[in-house]
Amino acid sequence: MTDLRSTLATTGPIDLAAHPSDATPGFTGTKRDAKRLLPEIGARLMDLQELLFANGRAGTTDRKVLLLLQGMDTSGKGGTLRHVAGLVDPQGLAITAFKAPTDEEREHDFLWRIGRRLPEPGMIGVFDRSQYEDVLIGRVRELAPADEIEQRYEQINAFEREFTGGGGVLLKCFLHISPDDQRERLAERLEDPTKFWKYNPADLDERSLWPQYQQAYEIVLERCSTEYAPWHVVPAGRKWYRNWAIATMLGETLAELGLDWPAADFDVEEQKRRLATM
Amino acid sequence: MTDLRSTLATTGPIDLAAHPSDATPGFTGTKRDAKRLLPEIGARLMDLQELLFANGRAGTTDRKVLLLLQGMDTSGKGGTLRHVAGLVDPQGLAITAFKAPTDEEREHDFLWRIGRRLPEPGMIGVFDRSQYEDVLIGRVRELAPADEIEQRYEQINAFEREFTGGGGVLLKCFLHISPDDQRERLAERLEDPTKFWKYNPADLDERSLWPQYQQAYEIVLERCSTEYAPWHVVPAGRKWYRNWAIATMLGETLAELGLDWPAADFDVEEQKRRLATM
Repeated sequence: MTDLRSTLATTGPIDLAAHPSDATPGFTGTKRDAKRLLPEIGARLMDLQELLFANGRAGTTDRKVLLLLQGMDTSGKGGTLRHVAGLVDPQGLAITAFKAPTDEEREHDFLWRIGRRLPEPGMIGVFDRSQYEDVLIGRVRELAPADEIEQRYEQINAFEREFTGGGGVLLKCFLHISPDDQRERLAERLEDPTKFWKYNPADLDERSLWPQYQQAYEIVLERCSTEYAPWHVVPAGRKWYRNWAIATMLGETLAELGLDWPAADFDVEEQKRRLATM
Repeated sequence: MTDLRSTLATTGPIDLAAHPSDATPGFTGTKRDAKRLLPEIGARLMDLQELLFANGRAGTTDRKVLLLLQGMDTSGKGGTLRHVAGLVDPQGLAITAFKAPTDEEREHDFLWRIGRRLPEPGMIGVFDRSQYEDVLIGRVRELAPADEIEQRYEQINAFEREFTGGGGVLLKCFLHISPDDQRERLAERLEDPTKFWKYNPADLDERSLWPQYQQAYEIVLERCSTEYAPWHVVPAGRKWYRNWAIATMLGETLAELGLDWPAADFDVEEQKRRLATM
């Protein structure tokens, strides 16, 4: 049986324009079906996450999972956090939303701030934006010399190889939308006063560079989709599919860890006897 | 109409032994009613939290909320995180579980590590244990000289006055269980291999000091329940009541902030025109 991760994983050169954003690979039902399935997937995620968390607390695992979300403005990184990350126990989650680097962060290598936010054993980390910003906006806006940008792809690969070599699992998701999807969503934000706070005039400046960003993403997907940390292209024009797909892949990732409940590191019967006397 | 916070708030001397842990103050329904109500409360919490978060992002508020949980082992701090904090958008949550202080933390004043984990504007912080450990285990185990412990109550009050003076709201909850509740829950952990990881033989050493801990809590509740940061005694013998009560009080706290959606800090019509051309 193929899992969804292998269906959505990308290898080699990719032409994003040829990927419809409203596709629903691996899912045959309706929107209603997907919405109905989500709480079931959530219950399973909660159980699997508790197993990971328990092992982290017991010190019996070095495993940790990092869900990394990238995508254009309005692609639904926040919605994924709310609807997918929101399915699990917040105690076991470590969410980081990366913004423009601070002065302190700028004094270090671009991976410094990323390394500090990697999840601990037993935890599920979620990155809302990530190290890839430094080869996306970094490349499009020429925020560093071209040769420095070029070197970053391999630096990122080496960084991810180290993370996955140390018990980490990376689930990298590119939330793929079309320019029309974005226009529609930006327009919604401008029509609804409860959404003004999500809107930033600078979003249109970025939008004007759509082809450049798509190209920068294509380079990322080609150079940084590795065996140990593949990229997944998640069609995100339909929010219900995006949520279903990411929740499903997160479930596959957690299940594959194959963890068991940590054994007692104390004498259970002795403890029962002691408790009975108190 | 009285809200639940004022029902559960405590002032002056308190005798915890006189408070039944299976009481359900402010709630008249059944367990089933409480469980059915929780998702409704959750939907409202989600909306109110988004309003707070939106203002935080827009930079239009200094408000933040801190839910502080204290209680004996098995009193349900973790369960509250899972079932109550889990109701809201994890993006807007900042959870800290305080453990025994690290060497670095020990080099500073006991409030140093606490101050670093206070929520930012727009966020809901949750403390699983807190500054109060330093007058609970700190007092019972004599981890500092008696006169130093004595001074901490006022230091905590001053610290909390500063936090609330700067736009913070503190919701302090003591999860109150009886020794029998604890015996039952520890016994459950010892019967169920999926719960061994939650059990620590040291829990029984603490249990053997139950009266000392209750007294230490009584002192905390008397000295540190202030007008600006009252303590709430939440009967936690029934998990469904505990969840309902804390979710309800969190909702009251968020509603009282009286926030509106942030206004646009850009010209909406101009942005619509620009978007239409792209």
